[in-house]
Order: sequence, then structure tokens, then C-alpha cells
Amino acid sequence: MTEEIVVIPGDGIGQEVVPAAVDVLQATGVDFEFVEATAGDHVAEEGGDPLPEETRDLAANADATLFGAAGESAADVILPLRDAVDSFVNVRPARTYPGVDALKPGMDVVFLRENTEGVYAGHEARLTDDVSTLTRVVSQSASERLAEYACEFAPEGFTVAHKANVMRETDGLFRDTVQRVAEENGVETDAALMDALAMHLCLRPEEYEVVVCPNLAGDVLSDLSAGLVGGLGLLPSANIGEERGLFEPVHGTAPDIAGQGVANPCATVLSAAMLLEYLDYGDEADDVRDAVEGVLAHGPRTPDLGGDAATADVTNAIVERL
Amino acid sequence: MTEEIVVIPGDGIGQEVVPAAVDVLQATGVDFEFVEATAGDHVAEEGGDPLPEETRDLAANADATLFGAAGESAADVILPLRDAVDSFVNVRPARTYPGVDALKPGMDVVFLRENTEGVYAGHEARLTDDVSTLTRVVSQSASERLAEYACEFAPEGFTVAHKANVMRETDGLFRDTVQRVAEENGVETDAALMDALAMHLCLRPEEYEVVVCPNLAGDVLSDLSAGLVGGLGLLPSANIGEERGLFEPVHGTAPDIAGQGVANPCATVLSAAMLLEYLDYGDEADDVRDAVEGVLAHGPRTPDLGGDAATADVTNAIVERL
Ligand SMILES: CC(C)[C@H](C(=O)O)[C@@H](O)C(=O)O
Ligand SMILES: CC(C)[C@H](C(=O)O)[C@@H](O)C(=O)O
Repeated sequence: MTEEIVVIPGDGIGQEVVPAAVDVLQATGVDFEFVEATAGDHVAEEGGDPLPEETRDLAANADATLFGAAGESAADVILPLRDAVDSFVNVRPARTYPGVDALKPGMDVVFLRENTEGVYAGHEARLTDDVSTLTRVVSQSASERLAEYACEFAPEGFTVAHKANVMRETDGLFRDTVQRVAEENGVETDAALMDALAMHLCLRPEEYEVVVCPNLAGDVLSDLSAGLVGGLGLLPSANIGEERGLFEPVHGTAPDIAGQGVANPCATVLSAAMLLEYLDYGDEADDVRDAVEGVLAHGPRTPDLGGDAATADVTNAIVERL
Repeated sequence: MTEEIVVIPGDGIGQEVVPAAVDVLQATGVDFEFVEATAGDHVAEEGGDPLPEETRDLAANADATLFGAAGESAADVILPLRDAVDSFVNVRPARTYPGVDALKPGMDVVFLRENTEGVYAGHEARLTDDVSTLTRVVSQSASERLAEYACEFAPEGFTVAHKANVMRETDGLFRDTVQRVAEENGVETDAALMDALAMHLCLRPEEYEVVVCPNLAGDVLSDLSAGLVGGLGLLPSANIGEERGLFEPVHGTAPDIAGQGVANPCATVLSAAMLLEYLDYGDEADDVRDAVEGVLAHGPRTPDLGGDAATADVTNAIVERL
């Protein structure tokens, strides 16, 4: 069966790392058909919508979409795309690799970020000249769906991040619902205040394996963890929905190096591995991850990792190891 | 003139580090009178309000209050206390010291955290069985007051943290107001997304000196920075109002070591130095800071810093250096 994958390179280094990941996907031997679609600043600059209707519809109907990055228009592209695939959880692994300098070499944490609500629900108002408000939304149903996923993902247990000492009703509902569902499933959990967790991740990340987070907490804690494992160049992510998925590196468009052919493709290639796994090509996903790990350990490396290889060199080296 | 200081040890190690800081304040030679007041879990356990009306009123009428920590009731104690002194900014310096192990030895950042609103404004509701909401409030007036303080505090410029790509109206108002006031005062600023900032603080903290934050962003970014400088044992803070101030270590009650007499008093002593500065005893504040620095560099040190000294040993060593 041919698997149809929608591919949206976007802006900046997205245009370099997405083709690299496509090369790797093609080398796995799975019968893929790639449908390319546009989005991002370069579309907006030509007078279009940063997320064209056509691109949105393609993602909303494909089993899987691989996305690169968008510039200034990032929020207008990625948030509607996450919505288009009806994603309820953003899976963000943050781990270190042999051969890569990291502030915290022992780190290997997966963040399961709520992907539909929180402050992202987006009801804002300018009530008066002086006062603006945002309505943060936390629902039991979204918390339950996330918790069920977390229980399957981490049957050995997980940590629930929250700020329920201040956001008592909303984060209280989040924390209590996630912990209740876990208990019903016989999964152990503990709860941690997100501020304390930010500190503990810096001090003792090895104490955490899976952290379930409200939307914005997951955004901040996973980016912070990128800092602890050596930067955004290695962090993949998966926006998982019941029927489709959207896979993207955590990094952005990196305007400082875009167009030079030296962007690190690993985060996007690892996102492609998450795509393979989502489509039930578990062996191929493992192969891709092993190949990336081998290249990270032995080179070639792009400049962000202290090397001087080009994107193409790293991509070829990954493909050769498959 | 006798300076009246309200002293609220609170729970856990608060009961050990606040008396230590009082000893240091007494050794400065300033004519202080200390009025002790109670708050925290131990009051609630005896059937009282965790923040007794009397304690609240004392803080609301004193020029300066020194607070330790509160346990489970922390939010019910510290948030009303910040309100009682009409504090609009929470000043949180995070720096490393010679002789203290830190993940990021070059770090020296001061967070200026908005102290009245954001998600802390606290309007929550359970709309239906399924849905809860919290109304986040951002006002132009609070942002202006914070910005004016920031301009005086950091005339050489500062960074504004925000998440205005998602919270467009509220954090947009925050960012734009703070940057406008800064421009009117000839102070340079740049703006940084709080998620990216969490990462950059881990990677290159030396690029930041002063960061102006919405309330929760300041909470998380300062705790994360505590992790980068080696833990909470060294972080003081000042809740500044127009007419009064409330000074407290960033750390909590540390139930694991409470009652053993080995808590690190430095964060509270450094908070007392901020109190001295607030009351215009700048020289004495410098003396206290120098004494703490000397002790951190040469010992004695409490167990959290790898030593085996008691709270009293460290306190005496600080006093001797004055
Ligand atoms: C671009 C922005 C809307 C987005 C988010 O906040 O989710 C980004 O920071 C991310 O983490 O993917
Ligand atoms: C206890 C809690 C309400 C408080 C806060 O969120 O401000 C604490 O985390 C702090 O930073 O002082």
C-alpha cells in the first residue's frame, strides 16, 4: 500500500531539513508518496494566507504530515495545522546523545503536552482602554484524553506538571483528572508544580521520564529541556490525533543560517521516525533512530554541533547507515 | 530613628533562616525593632487562618517585612502578603558565586516579575461539568508601573519576556506597553518569547542582565534560573511597593531538612540585604552582600553546598565578616 504523506517545508531552514527527512524516509524502503504543500511567511509575502486553505485541507485528510518551520507567521501556521489533524497531544522527547555536548548528559525525558486548550484556546478581549483579558480553558474531557494516551505511553508511570496552587480550578481540574484516570488504569503518577519542575529539570533531570503538561507549561518546559540537552537541533515532535498526525522539529526557521545548506537535519529526521512509528513502521522507525544516533556519535556533524559538515553530508551519512 | 521590621518566619526552615537573617540585620548597627508575626501551616493546623488578620495588618502598615516560607498554605500566605504591601514588582536576582558549583557559572540575571495580575488575578470558574476557565488579566497601568521601575532599575536596557505570538491581546499589551515606556525613557529593550528564553537562559545566560516578565513567566523563569546557579538556597527576592516592601527567599519550607538546624540561611540573609537597600541603607546592604560572598567563597558551608556546617555556623561567619 502506498502511504501518502503531506510535506510542508515552510520557511527558512524548513526548506532544507524537510527535503533531507524525505530523502531518509524514501531510503527506508516504505512505499511513500509525498505531496508537497506550501505555508509560511513566503506565502504571506506573496499576498496569500500563511496557511493556504489547500494546505490545511491536505493535512486534514492525510494520515501523516511532515512540517518544517514557519517564520513570523508560525502561530498562524502551526496552531491551525495542529487543529486540522485534530491533535490532542504533542509528544516532545528531549534526550541527550553520545557525542553531543549537553549541559545535562543524563537527560531523557518525554513531554506529553496538551495540544488543544489552555491559554491556546485563545479567547482574548480588550475590556477597556486599560484592561485586557484572556480566558484560559481547561476541560475534563481534554485532560482525560491526554491522560489515557499518557497511560498507554508510560504504563510505568509519569509526572503531572501543574500550577494548581494558583490556578486552583483549572490546573486543579487538569491535575486531578489526569491523576484519576491514571489511577483507574493502575498507572502511578506524581504531581509537580511547574516552577519547581523547571528547577528540578536543571538539577536532576534523571528523576523524570515522562511529564504530562498543560499546553503552555509543555511549551516552556520542553524548550528549557532543549537547552539542557544541547539545543533545539535534535528535538523532534509529534502532534498526535486519533486518525492523523503532524510531525515537526521543535526548532524554528533559524534565519541566521537559512539558505547556507548547513542546517542540522536531525530533529526533522527524528520527527520522520516518529511519523514512521505512528504509521506502524516500528522497525523502520528504529532503523532511522539508530542511524541518526550513529551519525551523532561518529560524525559528520553540522556546525551547531561543532562540526563543519553540510546538511547533505549528514543526510547522506544517515541514509548510508540504513 | 528606629526602623520597625515585621518578621514572619512561617513554616519549616523559615523558622531557622529568618532568625539567622535577623541576627545579621542586628549586626549591621542599624537601629531595628523587630515585631514577630505568625503565618503558615502551623497556624492553620491550630485552627487559625494561615494568614491571620493581625499578621496581614502588621505587614500592611510596616515599611518592611521579612518573610521566611510557608508550606501547603504558601499561596494563601504569600499572595495576600504581596497584596498587603501593594507590591507591583517582585525583584529576583539569580547569580552565581565564587566557590559555589553552578551549571552556568557566568549567570547574573535579575528578573523583574509583574506582581499583581496575569493568571494570579485569579478569576476562575467551573462553567460546566466539563469546562473550567481562568481569566488572565493584563492591564496597561500595571505594565506601565512595572516598566517605569524597570527603567530606573536598568537604565542600560533590559529584555521583555512574553508569549505574544499566542496571547496576542494580553501579552501583546504587556510587551508593547513595557517597550513603549522604555522608549519614552530612552532605555533600550529587546523582546523574547518566554519559551525561547527558557532555552537561551540554559545555553547563554551571560547574554541577559535584566528580564522583565509577566507574573507566571517570572515565576517559572526565575525558578529555572535557580537551577542554573545551583539551587534555591542562594536566591533572595524583594516584593517592592510604592511605600512598603516584603522580602523573602525564593525557596520554600524544605520539609526534608526542617528542624535539623542545617538550612542554608544565605537566601534569607541576601533578602535582608535587599531590605536594607530598600530602606536606603545602601552601605549596610553592600556589607551584608560582601560578607555572604566571603563566606560562600571560603566557608563554612551548609550541606546543600557540599559542606557540613550548621545554619548557626554560617550565620556567625557572616556576622564576623561585617
Ligand atoms: C510558534 C508557537 C505558536 C509554538 C507554540 O507555542 O506551540 C511553538 O513555540 C512551539 O512550541 O511549537
Ligand atoms: C507559592 C506560590 C504561590 C508562589 C508563586 O507562584 O508566586 C511561589 O512559587 C513563588 O514563586 O514565590
